[in-house]
Amino acid sequence: MTKATIKDVAKLAEVSLKTVSRVINKEPSVSRTKVLIVEDAIKKLGYKPNLAARNLRSTKSYAVALVYDNPNPYYVIDMQNGALNACRDKGYGLQIHPCYSDDSSIAQDLVQLVKTADLAGLLLAPPISERADIISILRDNDVHYVGIVSGSKENDELSPCICVDDRQAAYEITDHLIKEGHTDIAFFWGEEIHKSSPERFSGYQDALKDHHIELKEEFIFEGEYSFESGMKNAEKLIALKQKPSALFCSNDEIAAGALTAFNAAGLTVPHDIAIAGFEDSPFSRHSSPPITTAKQATQSIAEAATNSLIHEIRPDARSKGEEKPKTIYSPSLIIRPSTTGKD
Amino acid sequence: MTKATIKDVAKLAEVSLKTVSRVINKEPSVSRTKVLIVEDAIKKLGYKPNLAARNLRSTKSYAVALVYDNPNPYYVIDMQNGALNACRDKGYGLQIHPCYSDDSSIAQDLVQLVKTADLAGLLLAPPISERADIISILRDNDVHYVGIVSGSKENDELSPCICVDDRQAAYEITDHLIKEGHTDIAFFWGEEIHKSSPERFSGYQDALKDHHIELKEEFIFEGEYSFESGMKNAEKLIALKQKPSALFCSNDEIAAGALTAFNAAGLTVPHDIAIAGFEDSPFSRHSSPPITTAKQATQSIAEAATNSLIHEIRPDARSKGEEKPKTIYSPSLIIRPSTTGKD
Repeated sequence: MTKATIKDVAKLAEVSLKTVSRVINKEPSVSRTKVLIVEDAIKKLGYKPNLAARNLRSTKSYAVALVYDNPNPYYVIDMQNGALNACRDKGYGLQIHPCYSDDSSIAQDLVQLVKTADLAGLLLAPPISERADIISILRDNDVHYVGIVSGSKENDELSPCICVDDRQAAYEITDHLIKEGHTDIAFFWGEEIHKSSPERFSGYQDALKDHHIELKEEFIFEGEYSFESGMKNAEKLIALKQKPSALFCSNDEIAAGALTAFNAAGLTVPHDIAIAGFEDSPFSRHSSPPITTAKQATQSIAEAATNSLIHEIRPDARSKGEEKPKTIYSPSLIIRPSTTGKD
Repeated sequence: MTKATIKDVAKLAEVSLKTVSRVINKEPSVSRTKVLIVEDAIKKLGYKPNLAARNLRSTKSYAVALVYDNPNPYYVIDMQNGALNACRDKGYGLQIHPCYSDDSSIAQDLVQLVKTADLAGLLLAPPISERADIISILRDNDVHYVGIVSGSKENDELSPCICVDDRQAAYEITDHLIKEGHTDIAFFWGEEIHKSSPERFSGYQDALKDHHIELKEEFIFEGEYSFESGMKNAEKLIALKQKPSALFCSNDEIAAGALTAFNAAGLTVPHDIAIAGFEDSPFSRHSSPPITTAKQATQSIAEAATNSLIHEIRPDARSKGEEKPKTIYSPSLIIRPSTTGKD
């Protein structure tokens, strides 16, 4: 079968190429009747529009970049896949741009990138999206962007953004541990530069407070979002005279590292110490025992952020009947044997 | 400090903007003296060329796409990072294009993508790079591409490509198991659509043959490159009356899944059964015990392939003194406690 072209669609629909292109690009100024006729022709011919209409438009950029600084491949791939879902749907290409968020020239580099790589806009992952200094420079240079930010409400300094309510999910995990009978609950931090770290810590703090449980400084360990950091802090925890009976790790990699250290030291989870993580990455699913966690809908979040970005760039790109994407996402508690002992 | 611009470079070097642009783009037709003067000015000003010179050139595309169908985030991220190293060095943007290699319209879709997204070329990961039917259509449509292919020598049907000698590495792993005293060695396959699967199997076969060890059909298990496939096949292996004393898994995810199943069944690794994987992914490093494997230089391989692609597109882009990238890579054996019992 020969592949249908945009010309075939125009011929079958009896409209001009330009009209087909407008329908594909979801531009206004095409009558409802014509939209239906063209959509019908596209369906009949099995024509795949994708980026095809672009040739008929010349100057506009049809690529956006995903900008991130994150060492976790599962998180990055989910983010990319979510962004790609939205990009493909709207006929955009996705460039990737991993970078170092502590690089002093990052904001200027991004402005330069947008100009020279001819990008329509940037999708910013945390922690870059959470740096008001970077955002301010992007705004000054009229760069289109949408960020993904840890928080329970929109933040004027960082918006437009999609929020992830880490605090609430951390509250629920801590509440779950307390209801399992624990009062001595340790906390392993991720990097402070990620807003998710203090947000998760604050959920932990609030849950303890609401249950009138005193927070013990010796149970709080600074660290990073990594397996190695989890192992290291678990070894320190094992050395404590008064050990906690439960541990809340700021993500699943930390939790998997801690679990490995506990196993090596002959401690049984959850009998000797219960463990919870965060993210629902394969680290929590593939460990033994599997680890209680909070499921982050990273892919949906990235898709929503990318849709927001494209609407920001081209308000006319919104599909008919398409609602404004949700702006606040809450990770949901997933209970597994690492805190209950039950399979 | 204000950021240096291309104009500052031109001023300091006392040459035209066009000459600076040509030097950055590594175009020929600039005298050696001028190249040195411009490079010196770039260095003095701390100017970051990146994609900046592109505005001075108009029609050429400065983006390539990485095309892949692989569920392993570690592999994909390594591949992306390698491709990005080369792209950034040469002033190209990298789009990503995950897809389904069993989609019947994939070749036509790629041709379309190159045209409409205005890409300079495609970097193809296996198994897409290993499909002669896809390659043939790309050639017919004058699409620039370079593939990464499992094999020990260049393959006319698939070239240009960078080869990964999976067979040789699998031979070495099997040889190591035999030297540890094993003669009953099981083999867990990955998907056959990946050429790496039969290549790894053939290395296993050849090593057995060279050591005059009979291959036993009941020890060969078909499967996929996944944790779940490893668990499932390990459960079948445990049910065998005559169990093997060692197991070679086609990748680390399979090996980690098998290890989890053995642990659950109360079998000790390597005492009851030795396990080897392939890839040196975190699955093999973070398991207990850590798993013997073959280290694949995925990032360097992707970087070499991308350099090849850019040279293919623009033969003038090669840096002075830059050698043609290596075209055959051999993964190297990494021995860990899962086969030796020693830490």
